[in-house]
Amino acid sequence: MLSSVRAGARRLPRHVSRLQAVRPLATASSSVFPNEPPKPAVQTAIPGPRSKAALAKLEKVFDTRSMNFVADYDKCHGNYIVDHDGNVLLDAFAQIASIPLGYNNPHLLEVADTPEMRSAIVNRPALGAFPSSEWADILETGLLKAAPKGLSQVLTSMTGSDANELAFKAAFIWRRTQERGGADFTAEELASVMKNEAPGAPRYSILSFEGGFHGRLFGSLSTTRSKAIHKLDIPAFDWPAAPFPRLKYPLEEHAAENAAEEARCLAETERLLDTWPQPVAALIVEPIQSEGGDNHASPSFFQALRKATAARGVLMIVDEVQTGVGATGRFWAHEHWDLPTPPDMVTFSKKAQAAGFYYKDAALRPDRPYRQYNTWMGDPARALLFRGIHEEVTRLGLVERTARVGRYLWEGLEGLARRHPGEVQNLRGKERGTFIAFDSPRREEVLARARAGGLNIGASGDRAIRLRPMLVFEEKHADILLDILENAIKK
Amino acid sequence: MLSSVRAGARRLPRHVSRLQAVRPLATASSSVFPNEPPKPAVQTAIPGPRSKAALAKLEKVFDTRSMNFVADYDKCHGNYIVDHDGNVLLDAFAQIASIPLGYNNPHLLEVADTPEMRSAIVNRPALGAFPSSEWADILETGLLKAAPKGLSQVLTSMTGSDANELAFKAAFIWRRTQERGGADFTAEELASVMKNEAPGAPRYSILSFEGGFHGRLFGSLSTTRSKAIHKLDIPAFDWPAAPFPRLKYPLEEHAAENAAEEARCLAETERLLDTWPQPVAALIVEPIQSEGGDNHASPSFFQALRKATAARGVLMIVDEVQTGVGATGRFWAHEHWDLPTPPDMVTFSKKAQAAGFYYKDAALRPDRPYRQYNTWMGDPARALLFRGIHEEVTRLGLVERTARVGRYLWEGLEGLARRHPGEVQNLRGKERGTFIAFDSPRREEVLARARAGGLNIGASGDRAIRLRPMLVFEEKHADILLDILENAIKK
Repeated sequence: MLSSVRAGARRLPRHVSRLQAVRPLATASSSVFPNEPPKPAVQTAIPGPRSKAALAKLEKVFDTRSMNFVADYDKCHGNYIVDHDGNVLLDAFAQIASIPLGYNNPHLLEVADTPEMRSAIVNRPALGAFPSSEWADILETGLLKAAPKGLSQVLTSMTGSDANELAFKAAFIWRRTQERGGADFTAEELASVMKNEAPGAPRYSILSFEGGFHGRLFGSLSTTRSKAIHKLDIPAFDWPAAPFPRLKYPLEEHAAENAAEEARCLAETERLLDTWPQPVAALIVEPIQSEGGDNHASPSFFQALRKATAARGVLMIVDEVQTGVGATGRFWAHEHWDLPTPPDMVTFSKKAQAAGFYYKDAALRPDRPYRQYNTWMGDPARALLFRGIHEEVTRLGLVERTARVGRYLWEGLEGLARRHPGEVQNLRGKERGTFIAFDSPRREEVLARARAGGLNIGASGDRAIRLRPMLVFEEKHADILLDILENAIKK
Repeated sequence: MLSSVRAGARRLPRHVSRLQAVRPLATASSSVFPNEPPKPAVQTAIPGPRSKAALAKLEKVFDTRSMNFVADYDKCHGNYIVDHDGNVLLDAFAQIASIPLGYNNPHLLEVADTPEMRSAIVNRPALGAFPSSEWADILETGLLKAAPKGLSQVLTSMTGSDANELAFKAAFIWRRTQERGGADFTAEELASVMKNEAPGAPRYSILSFEGGFHGRLFGSLSTTRSKAIHKLDIPAFDWPAAPFPRLKYPLEEHAAENAAEEARCLAETERLLDTWPQPVAALIVEPIQSEGGDNHASPSFFQALRKATAARGVLMIVDEVQTGVGATGRFWAHEHWDLPTPPDMVTFSKKAQAAGFYYKDAALRPDRPYRQYNTWMGDPARALLFRGIHEEVTRLGLVERTARVGRYLWEGLEGLARRHPGEVQNLRGKERGTFIAFDSPRREEVLARARAGGLNIGASGDRAIRLRPMLVFEEKHADILLDILENAIKK
């Protein structure tokens, strides 16, 4: 089938005022991505015959049932993904929100084409034992330059799941070390821990929120409460889950109800912190519950969580695996909150490409070495890539631009919601950059129609469509997205 | 201080017969690594002043207490690591057994310098949703070419810890799916799992062995039983640990005692499989307990484990994270066992650089998609590197050579043990390539003296020194190792 993008897609959408539409004449992406396609182009069903053949071949050795289509990454540029049948799609899903700066970003390709990167790939060190002489410099000019305010330390890891689990371990070790008050491990602790029993392996817990997603390994999955299919048949720790606010949108029209809902959730959180039989060492929370359906809460809710945890000696972990690195219009989403004191730990992965957690100060380091330790402890190749990402974000002002493009996209989506109130419901993410979602009663159909129209977007929660464009997404891409989406809804 | 390698180090060591010493005139490493140093050269204490300054700088933002020294990886070649003070050490620890083919291996540098690798770094896909069109080919020409006999499928991940945890998840899902017998999830399962409660989150278990090491995340750490410091203060699952044989060495001199010890451990394993209150879904075992102190067991012990698990419908996971990829003189260490049927899963990482697990057939895939799923599901960059590693291992016959060099090294160490029976005890790893260890009553002192003499080696367990050379380690390197080690012992 031919692309459903109409000839007029680049015209101003009807719902955009002249004032909003003013934008720089030379857009950054046209200079950064000279080969970026002007628009989507869909020639076959997706997946098409060549994608299907590649998936059939792959299926013999690797589970492919979750796969959407097969891509030719060497043909992708900027915001556009090209599948194995030559279909060109505007990608507002971006590998589950993990591509920061567009496909084949020239600056990142340069970073990948350096002796430093080749050495990092071939001579991968055990970072905890034999780091390279450049490691401090790589951190200081990269990951730490981007550190959330008030957090000066970093522990690197490999994925969002293990970043969260290392943060949990830091919390448990910190808590028990405080309680031990400088005393050595007891003989009982040393013996019981080898049998996985208390007191050496304490029955302590991490509090998370209903609807939260923090990963799928055994510790992180015990805090994940998004969907049953993520958790079924996997043993889990007996840890508490507090209700996360279920707000009504638009937020400004439901201020009183929403404040009451947040107060209810906060009270229940505090009750759990005070009464859960397994002492709570840390609370983990996403700034926006992402896999869980893009559930928001107000800055005052998070401020209250910070106060409630600090008052109890419970650590606060902010999981910025999906929200971090610019998409909400701030580099870290929790910057929107204006917290009284920083979170104790902030975890990251996905668009950072590197993974790990930031922490406040050396007090959160274990009292002895080898307690937070593993062979690789991260990956310098990915830390180099993060540095390149951060350089480019800074050079092009992509966080600020994403805030601006997000406002433009929001206006367009509000227009869609006004014109199709049955199809675009509970629009959310205002002033959160391009990190926008809405509920769609016919979601699967809309997603399929959008894809057939040349737009790759994703789902979250039970009925949400989540937009996760890259940081190189501009107003011109928003126009195309809005146009395809409106066509998908109207059909 | 000057290198302690005496001028005569390259002469035949006294303990090597002429016959044993015959070896190819042109050694592979001299052609592969034209810049490999001829011998170690130590000029300063280790860590020296420049390493110390770099560590002090790094300490401000990253925990450095476990670090040995800081390396200049661009100056390292082959078997030699060069620290930031210019000291040149023969590296028989190899980043905790994770460098397969020597520093700055020319073939791997070529692999790292390809458009394919740059694309893999910059355009990292969500493999479970949008794999590249080359993914099947990368697997077939790499990871699957090296697959253990009888295992045709692979699931990729990021580290040894998460590889093991994904294998555990596969086992739990498989077990519960069998028990469910095709029925759908019950309402009770769907509701209880969101509260981390049975039956949705079943109280099932993984059996591991005392002394085993399988990683340090929450599920893998629950099976790790190496040292208390690895586990203290971290909540753990109530899972069983069976005794692992504590054999006497040399094995051939203690055949009857060792057989009795293995029978005892096997009986206790079977008792735990039959009686542990939380049904055992899988047993995980290392071919050689590596972190735990290089503890061996006989092929017949592992054959019996295979039979005991198969008879009970318990899956058998062989953890080849440290033993895999050639160091034992077979590509996979469990090839030494001649099992009646293959293990159900084999996990890998470290020298593979890629990570994940192999499995028997599609029956071990979950019954529905999205049950074993995460954003990245591995890393094509590391799968490309694995392919390069496997190519080079095959081209140079490095597994066979490691078997040969291992015999040479073993003979040399036997000589050391004869001459210094109080210092080299319980030598073990005969016919296991270069995967050799011994107990050292003055271990910390010996390790420090060896390092001062230009040899980087590691410890394991309570008193073992483990040798973990790379696959490019040759007889000439063994001579140097033996010489430095003997000097370190004699002092």
